[in-house]
Amino acid sequence: MPDPGPIRIVPVDGIPEVEPGFDLGSAIARNGTPTGEDVIVISQKVVSKAEGRVVELDRVSPGEEASSLASELGQDPRLIELVLAESREVVRADPEREILITETNHGFICANAGIDSSNAGRPDAVVLLPEDPDRSAREIREAIEDACGCRPAVLVTDSFGRAWRIGQVEVAIGCAGIDPLDDWRGRKDLGGRELNATEIGIADELAAAADLARDKTSRNPAVKIEGVGRFVRPDHGPGCSGQLRPRAHDLFR
Amino acid sequence: MPDPGPIRIVPVDGIPEVEPGFDLGSAIARNGTPTGEDVIVISQKVVSKAEGRVVELDRVSPGEEASSLASELGQDPRLIELVLAESREVVRADPEREILITETNHGFICANAGIDSSNAGRPDAVVLLPEDPDRSAREIREAIEDACGCRPAVLVTDSFGRAWRIGQVEVAIGCAGIDPLDDWRGRKDLGGRELNATEIGIADELAAAADLARDKTSRNPAVKIEGVGRFVRPDHGPGCSGQLRPRAHDLFR
Repeated sequence: MPDPGPIRIVPVDGIPEVEPGFDLGSAIARNGTPTGEDVIVISQKVVSKAEGRVVELDRVSPGEEASSLASELGQDPRLIELVLAESREVVRADPEREILITETNHGFICANAGIDSSNAGRPDAVVLLPEDPDRSAREIREAIEDACGCRPAVLVTDSFGRAWRIGQVEVAIGCAGIDPLDDWRGRKDLGGRELNATEIGIADELAAAADLARDKTSRNPAVKIEGVGRFVRPDHGPGCSGQLRPRAHDLFR
Repeated sequence: MPDPGPIRIVPVDGIPEVEPGFDLGSAIARNGTPTGEDVIVISQKVVSKAEGRVVELDRVSPGEEASSLASELGQDPRLIELVLAESREVVRADPEREILITETNHGFICANAGIDSSNAGRPDAVVLLPEDPDRSAREIREAIEDACGCRPAVLVTDSFGRAWRIGQVEVAIGCAGIDPLDDWRGRKDLGGRELNATEIGIADELAAAADLARDKTSRNPAVKIEGVGRFVRPDHGPGCSGQLRPRAHDLFR
């Protein structure tokens, strides 16, 4: 396989403040003029807002477990109630950073079940992750195709912390039209030896790349990556859920 | 801060097979024509080769601990001996993937202390990580400046696996001329609320982006990223070692 050519990362300008029901796909098609060789990367928060996944904390009644964890963490018990509702399991409580690290109902391991209180659009409101980010990505991809007749790959992304390394990086939580893993198993190096690298987390690398062109405080929620057509597939593919390490193979719970 | 403009990721062509003592900096200056607004991303393997960090397994005598771990893993005891010598601590043994996950002498947590047996250039030889990847990055940056009078940021990168998520992604193990973390603490969202995101792992996001333009089997070890001048600083900065989570704050050992 020859080396790929240059890659361009371009913010998609002109997407307005997103309200529930907003058609993100057609706004991206109009403002981003994608082709079927591009990858469109969309930050989770606008996807969640378009899907109405915004909750006013006033409407949440914390239960006993949430209240007890919240006082341990110095956190708002209503937020912790939502975190527990969005999670299968609490993996760690981190009083120093005032967060719970949980496994979300989707299977992601992240801080506070991915619930974000910045840029929610209303005071005292928080934004939950999309219910099914792979489905969100498929629906946005289909809306883009309806609007412009082309099928770029679509990623829905969020900033997650990592074990061992300080700092958050953008990762893919949903995808359509791309395999999140580029499978190198069985490929040989130039000397004919099997490669150590086995599967490359290509959706996460694309998510990270897109984040470089984005400013966290801006209203710019979508980014187009050109020159990555070799990763785009015509069907929607397996989604990001297949990228989660099965619990039995996970050494770090 | 306005949204950044487009970013371009360009492979640096024409770097020959690297032997010990090879001047990577001047080859990158010649073939990549960087400016002081670019980030140059170099894969660890060529840096290690230029620094002579290649070991013939024939010259390694495995000790008792290595032999016992190797038989548990179904691995070559000579490789495991090197892994132990390059590590402070074994974090996990993973017989299924036949690897040790260790904390390297630098403090990175990764498979087999980052020792790689593919593309070593000689049969039965393996490539160790650079002794001090931050120093490697500084030296390459200085050699680039000597050759072309400009000071791009320089990252030395490797592919690491992650907890919880399948697939390896490229991360920065050494850097010069850039702060590996973009510190967002204290910044406010558009509504005036403090951002959830605190520190962005910008060096790791740049490493991941560069990997998209690279082919693991190719001889193309360097990539230039344009349009990221806002991350480049005149001095060398703190290096990647400051990006490692201190053990006392690490919930996932």
